[in-house]
Amino acid sequence: MDKVEHIGIAVKNIGESNKLFAKLLGVEPYKMEEVASEGVRTSFFQSGPNKVELLEATTLDSPIAKFLDRKGEGIHHIAFAVEDIKSEIQRLKKEGFKVLNETPKKGADNKLVAFLHPKGTNGVLVELCQEIKEE
Amino acid sequence: MDKVEHIGIAVKNIGESNKLFAKLLGVEPYKMEEVASEGVRTSFFQSGPNKVELLEATTLDSPIAKFLDRKGEGIHHIAFAVEDIKSEIQRLKKEGFKVLNETPKKGADNKLVAFLHPKGTNGVLVELCQEIKEE
Repeated sequence: MDKVEHIGIAVKNIGESNKLFAKLLGVEPYKMEEVASEGVRTSFFQSGPNKVELLEATTLDSPIAKFLDRKGEGIHHIAFAVEDIKSEIQRLKKEGFKVLNETPKKGADNKLVAFLHPKGTNGVLVELCQEIKEE
Repeated sequence: MDKVEHIGIAVKNIGESNKLFAKLLGVEPYKMEEVASEGVRTSFFQSGPNKVELLEATTLDSPIAKFLDRKGEGIHHIAFAVEDIKSEIQRLKKEGFKVLNETPKKGADNKLVAFLHPKGTNGVLVELCQEIKEE
């Protein structure tokens, strides 16, 4: 794992939270993006080599809507940058981690992503993410 | 805020969790440290420019013991590195954030730290931390 790529934070109202996190971090979000397949609207803030991602649900059955219902607003996941997501998935499976996406899927911000089950990581939802390179 | 300095994760048994996170992150913890004033035992893992801090309670009334009782294991806080913690505290107070430590306190890993109240930050416990420089 090369670094913390981003920290994902579940919020109820991304418009309001964009204002709040702009004050907190001292920068405006550099982009917003909807990932329809996941039922989320996201915004991204740069913090040095890392990012903060805010996530708002766009459908009632999206994972973020369920998280907000169960736990309320707060940190939803940590994403680590990896160079080669497929080999990292294989390495982690051998180490006994439960990988939720054996085939990486397209996430926000031009990334291939896969999640590990939080039951195997002390309650932490861990995302692996690899930049998609142009062929 | 210069970068994510570390992510703090509350765990029940730091010995077991050290083994788990060493497998996850592919590195051993580079140090362990007890902060008696906070009732915690900590371990630190490097991930590129960032760190993962595991926190185990050493007293029944430590904030980590209370967090584990209420929420179970998982992400406890995010710490951002700042150059000048006192001026950052003043800036955030003016922006309306509730700073829990108006005078920064000594934290683990040679840092001066201050926390923001999570009610003002969408449920996220935010730590500011500044490296203590030798005079």
